[in-house]
Amino acid sequence: MTSVNKTAYPFDKTRLEAVLNRRFFYAPAFEIYGGVAGLYDYGPPGSALQANIIAEWRKHFIVEEHMLELDTTIMTPAPVFETSGHVARFADWMVKDSKTGDVLRADHLVKNVLEARLNSDKEARGLAAQPVKEDEKDKKKKKKNVKASPVQLADEIVVEYERILAKLDDYTGPELGELCRKHSIKNPDTDNEVTEPVQFNLMFASSIGPTGQHPGFLRPETAQGHFLNFSRLLEYNNGRVPFASAQIGRSFRNEISPRAGLLRVREFTMAEIEHYVDPEDKSHAHFGEVRHVVLSLLDRHTQSAGSTQITKTSIGEAVDKGTVANQTLGYFLARIYTFLLKIGINPDRLRFRQHMANEMAHYATDCWDAEIQNSYGWTECVGCADRAAYDLSVHSAKTGHPLVVRQALKEPIVIEKEVPEFNKKNLGKKFLKDSAIVQQIVGDMDETQLLSLKEQLSKGSATITSSDQRSFELTSELLTIERKTLKQSIREFVPNVIEPSFGLGRILYTMLEHNFWCREQDIERGVLSLPPLVAPTKVLIVPLSAREEFDPLVAEVSMKLRKAGVFSRVDDSNTSIGKRYARNDELGTPFGVTLDFASVANRTMTLRERDTTTQLIGDIDEVIKVVIDLVEGTITWPEACQRLPAYDGVQAIE
Amino acid sequence: MTSVNKTAYPFDKTRLEAVLNRRFFYAPAFEIYGGVAGLYDYGPPGSALQANIIAEWRKHFIVEEHMLELDTTIMTPAPVFETSGHVARFADWMVKDSKTGDVLRADHLVKNVLEARLNSDKEARGLAAQPVKEDEKDKKKKKKNVKASPVQLADEIVVEYERILAKLDDYTGPELGELCRKHSIKNPDTDNEVTEPVQFNLMFASSIGPTGQHPGFLRPETAQGHFLNFSRLLEYNNGRVPFASAQIGRSFRNEISPRAGLLRVREFTMAEIEHYVDPEDKSHAHFGEVRHVVLSLLDRHTQSAGSTQITKTSIGEAVDKGTVANQTLGYFLARIYTFLLKIGINPDRLRFRQHMANEMAHYATDCWDAEIQNSYGWTECVGCADRAAYDLSVHSAKTGHPLVVRQALKEPIVIEKEVPEFNKKNLGKKFLKDSAIVQQIVGDMDETQLLSLKEQLSKGSATITSSDQRSFELTSELLTIERKTLKQSIREFVPNVIEPSFGLGRILYTMLEHNFWCREQDIERGVLSLPPLVAPTKVLIVPLSAREEFDPLVAEVSMKLRKAGVFSRVDDSNTSIGKRYARNDELGTPFGVTLDFASVANRTMTLRERDTTTQLIGDIDEVIKVVIDLVEGTITWPEACQRLPAYDGVQAIE
Repeated sequence: MTSVNKTAYPFDKTRLEAVLNRRFFYAPAFEIYGGVAGLYDYGPPGSALQANIIAEWRKHFIVEEHMLELDTTIMTPAPVFETSGHVARFADWMVKDSKTGDVLRADHLVKNVLEARLNSDKEARGLAAQPVKEDEKDKKKKKKNVKASPVQLADEIVVEYERILAKLDDYTGPELGELCRKHSIKNPDTDNEVTEPVQFNLMFASSIGPTGQHPGFLRPETAQGHFLNFSRLLEYNNGRVPFASAQIGRSFRNEISPRAGLLRVREFTMAEIEHYVDPEDKSHAHFGEVRHVVLSLLDRHTQSAGSTQITKTSIGEAVDKGTVANQTLGYFLARIYTFLLKIGINPDRLRFRQHMANEMAHYATDCWDAEIQNSYGWTECVGCADRAAYDLSVHSAKTGHPLVVRQALKEPIVIEKEVPEFNKKNLGKKFLKDSAIVQQIVGDMDETQLLSLKEQLSKGSATITSSDQRSFELTSELLTIERKTLKQSIREFVPNVIEPSFGLGRILYTMLEHNFWCREQDIERGVLSLPPLVAPTKVLIVPLSAREEFDPLVAEVSMKLRKAGVFSRVDDSNTSIGKRYARNDELGTPFGVTLDFASVANRTMTLRERDTTTQLIGDIDEVIKVVIDLVEGTITWPEACQRLPAYDGVQAIE
Repeated sequence: MTSVNKTAYPFDKTRLEAVLNRRFFYAPAFEIYGGVAGLYDYGPPGSALQANIIAEWRKHFIVEEHMLELDTTIMTPAPVFETSGHVARFADWMVKDSKTGDVLRADHLVKNVLEARLNSDKEARGLAAQPVKEDEKDKKKKKKNVKASPVQLADEIVVEYERILAKLDDYTGPELGELCRKHSIKNPDTDNEVTEPVQFNLMFASSIGPTGQHPGFLRPETAQGHFLNFSRLLEYNNGRVPFASAQIGRSFRNEISPRAGLLRVREFTMAEIEHYVDPEDKSHAHFGEVRHVVLSLLDRHTQSAGSTQITKTSIGEAVDKGTVANQTLGYFLARIYTFLLKIGINPDRLRFRQHMANEMAHYATDCWDAEIQNSYGWTECVGCADRAAYDLSVHSAKTGHPLVVRQALKEPIVIEKEVPEFNKKNLGKKFLKDSAIVQQIVGDMDETQLLSLKEQLSKGSATITSSDQRSFELTSELLTIERKTLKQSIREFVPNVIEPSFGLGRILYTMLEHNFWCREQDIERGVLSLPPLVAPTKVLIVPLSAREEFDPLVAEVSMKLRKAGVFSRVDDSNTSIGKRYARNDELGTPFGVTLDFASVANRTMTLRERDTTTQLIGDIDEVIKVVIDLVEGTITWPEACQRLPAYDGVQAIE
């Protein structure tokens, strides 16, 4: 076996980006029109990679866990997001450059400036500076002539900056403004001061129908589409909980100033699960199967203390200790972890970070993000929130449509409570049309209020007041209140929702970073070591040339692979076999087979593995069998080397 | 074999809709908020059905024809649609009720009113009226008390109405207004007159970024995303044409007054192919493989003559005769036909209709729609247009980015032409900064203009004029024009685009109509005879009850099917086996296997076929093999009956 050194050169984002652009994994959308920040198009390899990640997601979650798939609408009438709280609160804090009017996201501004100062400080102290961030590069491009000399900071300032950065996500808008003033944070592009942070709602607005009277928004998440269909889903599931719905689809966020490539975009594909669970029992039937999975956790206490030190612990222990709130949340964290590893994320660069109190979305009671480390830092790629009963409750209250589970109790529950009873005839005579209002006021009373009313009635009469301040006098001829024993045989409850939510573009990009390297012999030869499971093309078929004599064999191999469900591509372009392999190393194609004159004469074919570039040789059908096993993951390359002889690059024609 | 009578009852849309709603194939979006016309959510079986249709589409087109898949952005900056012509012309004609202000689509109004009058006429003549359309029903609901008595029309009026309806799609807005006046067409809901038709742009508008300065639209088709990436796609394809790009994704049209369920919606999933071809050679390499396919064609001449008579002809003949413009267009019509049949469309209710002149989209030079007959009439489900060089040319002209193919010529072409040559030094001296303008004016001249200029120069001097009406005098000291012989070794051309464009929701809905029927014995028992290829669930696993003793067998069968890639579902709900089968007949599940006490004792299992309800029995593993073959389509049910003994409904435990 040739051993491969994948770390001969440090990761170089510029090289990766050149490969992704050259091979059209993705590109800025509307590029020939000058582009629009935060919008990207996926080309053939990017689309295929994304489709393969989605297919595996569907298998790993929807099929294996019997989830109910949905495909709901993107365009959403405004009242839905008014109820959900997005109209009021789905916003970021933005500041403006006080002179140019350029718009900046407040938290990003603070982060970029403080990180730059810390890097400068390190340089001044003669310590190795951290790799320069992309945003810094942009800046430098803009004012190349102002190459600042390193500035050393006081030790206590360094500590303070680091503390601020560790809990950055926890600051409110006014607090971010305060930070800018206190630490003289200005727009680094212009050195101008910035305005006080103001909120900017991130939803794209439109209007539905020809009259312009129905405002709508593009959904910023798929979740509301699940919640609004809850009753139908529950019925489809024969009325039982727990169960989960799942959806893969496009969402939109009008980001203030998107940078960082696929990591912060205005339109993106999400995969979201809403798992509905009894609020009194958040255990998970299959938790035992994942209990042993060890995760890197960064809890909220650690962060509040200004640290980012992770703790490695089994999810079983984390739930037992209460670090992770419940089994269902823990179960999904472990399943997210195994999914990400399957598609090629490096486990050493994956952590689960708990949200701090102010950071949490308005609906969540606990939330952990799967964060993946990449050249931009640690990036949230999957959120896993316990949204409690928030969404179902607010939609139910708003629409009057009950979004509840009704469960037959094995043992009826016996309760005692105060029960009001009206004498309808007397009530009607006295209050006429207002009878209904009177009944409603009393009906809305809680136990304490009923008891107080009962006491007043026992003393002769009581006066109640409607919401519009009208008074009604009641006597025991009209109303009696008695303590009664009631049997309850149905339990009704609003389920809680655990939501794992995947940003597929972010996962795709960080995965590409984790799998990119350059060959030790030649830094110009980039390789994407994509797992066969998600690689856009599994097998490259390379005829020696485009000559017709190879056509029947190319067609045969191509057809046999297709029949086995293995996606292959033929490359008969007019260039050397070496160049064609190099191109496909950049495309992440794990295996290549070559057809030459010996193939025509002897029916042999060579098989090349991308990472090691080692080659094997064998009968065409035997090689096909081996390559199918490799792609399906039933054998490894060393095992394949046991089944076929090595090929030394010289093939004789008998 | 039990023979099955699927036509015992006429198709009943109300029954189908009840099934689709009850089983949550799809439902109005935001239903608990009162819904929004034209927006629908797909539930679990609808999502799965759609996903299966998409998977087959991907296989039939993208994989088999080596198309380049794309995934481009929905949110699009306005300049793109200004260039493409959508801002100016992507509109429908709408009229308003002159009193209530209600908005109606002009062509739909004419159609509904004239069809209603023709139906009333038939009734008056004692002929069987056509089944009442949904739109009519809605109307009747609104004014139940106004049950109009049938009105007979003059014979020549009947002929005129039929002629209008046959060429309805060919009228312009003013012509529709004229029709309303001439035939007293009023809003049928109110009997009020309607206003003159005005254009309403169907794109949803929004704005991109925090400053509101960048107007954007939601794409009404995915096509522009292909065209803007043409250069990258061509390079990915090693510079060769023909090739095709393909994309599956969401598009949006702000329909004026959507009705007709999934057939006219505001948000929908499309699958679009853009096939780039040499304008001088629109032949197709694989046309020979489809030449024999017989299609039902309705050409534009037939329609213009006021008829809707179809002609059955092989696509080979249709192309040879020039009815269909070229081989590539013909090839795709045939491929569309085979795709639609595969997923369950009835060929007798499928026709290809050619667009008439006024009807054609602004970019098309020829266009055929695959129309599928259903209870709403004939509905366009796939468009297949020759967009010529329109899109690539306009984007290229607007952006200055060449969207062209450059082809090395085998034989260089030798041409003679007039070539202007400036004396730059003298030119600069005389015109200073205006030199560039002078050069541009001459550079933009065609052969005739150059010849005329040459003649004037030979006579002493010539005067040329800029676009802003400034004159420049030229002499032969400044400019000479000579006839030169040039060799051209590269041919540069803008490819033409053939575009098959699929509306997946419409295909899905019409397919459901074509496959719905009620059992002869019991009209209440609806069946969806979905082909196994697209059925949401392929095999239902039915344990006799939810008792634990069946669990290991259920798990075993479930796992073995999953391993074979066959999607199954377990139904262990607390109801009779018969009811569970009936539910799955409505869900279109083609096969069911039952596990009972005999299974536990003997390892036998029964297998039921949905349409015939006949059952077979055999060893569990043998039944699994048969069911896999059935699902993969390698055997038919009659063949399965040869492999397993019939089951009479009584199973003994040995």
